[in-house]
Amino acid sequence: MPLPEKDAIIFHPIGYIRSPFKTVEGMPIQPSGAKDAVGKIELHGALEEGLKDLEGFSHIILLYHFHKNEGYKLTVKPFMDTVERGLFSTRAPRRPNMIGKSTVELLSIEGNILNIKGVDVLDGTPLIDIKPYVSKFDAVPATRFGWLETNAEKSATLKSDERFAED
Amino acid sequence: MPLPEKDAIIFHPIGYIRSPFKTVEGMPIQPSGAKDAVGKIELHGALEEGLKDLEGFSHIILLYHFHKNEGYKLTVKPFMDTVERGLFSTRAPRRPNMIGKSTVELLSIEGNILNIKGVDVLDGTPLIDIKPYVSKFDAVPATRFGWLETNAEKSATLKSDERFAED
Repeated sequence: MPLPEKDAIIFHPIGYIRSPFKTVEGMPIQPSGAKDAVGKIELHGALEEGLKDLEGFSHIILLYHFHKNEGYKLTVKPFMDTVERGLFSTRAPRRPNMIGKSTVELLSIEGNILNIKGVDVLDGTPLIDIKPYVSKFDAVPATRFGWLETNAEKSATLKSDERFAED
Repeated sequence: MPLPEKDAIIFHPIGYIRSPFKTVEGMPIQPSGAKDAVGKIELHGALEEGLKDLEGFSHIILLYHFHKNEGYKLTVKPFMDTVERGLFSTRAPRRPNMIGKSTVELLSIEGNILNIKGVDVLDGTPLIDIKPYVSKFDAVPATRFGWLETNAEKSATLKSDERFAED
């Protein structure tokens, strides 16, 4: 299912995320399932000045590369379900663009190192961006959650399995 | 401030966002300032099957390329402030990786077209990913909002100016 090669968007890691999760198996699948997991961000040293004022925020949004995944299918059986769902209605890592989003608690900043809590990503994950979490922008009065309406509740205790491992 | 070229992350647009905003000037700066703006996503036709089940969600998260921006500084004066802030404590579009995130209301889906509301991006913006908005994952009990604590309130009425236009 190749997308047009034109208009490629080229990003470079601004740093790397360190976490207790060394393999996909046993990894929590969302921050709500990893709320006590502590990790850190090693930001590229040249970008340290960009962290000014960030410590005033209790939470930050991380955008990162699902670097251990390859290929995707347009319907998948998510962790939280046994039915095939449309890929874009899931948070599965294997997507046309392998990009993940997590909101984590910012504990402290020391130089170019950010200590974070609630980290639900693999150790060594390449970081694409950090944004401050602002309820007014990021929390919306959503009313419907599709197939996740009831299933999201389960995610707090579910662990990743090999469902999304390489074929 | 070049980042290491190694480990480049290459994405391709999965579609394009259509909005009423043809130029940066006069554009609302967050969905809260564009809550009635209606637009659409033209998803690449080959990906249509991936939209299955998405219509059950009232809101979706869009990740997209700030394609009209070039270069960045590590401190910026945000729209909502008159003081230089660390780039990563802002939502400014000119960042090491020019990636934006917005949560919008999903009105309906017709084939590969998604009708959306609360769109705060430029017409023609390349789309990188669509994720379902799930309060449990995306809304967190944040307690501190740094310099945006009071200033975010203003954003509902502020419009973009030329602060982030090309030099």
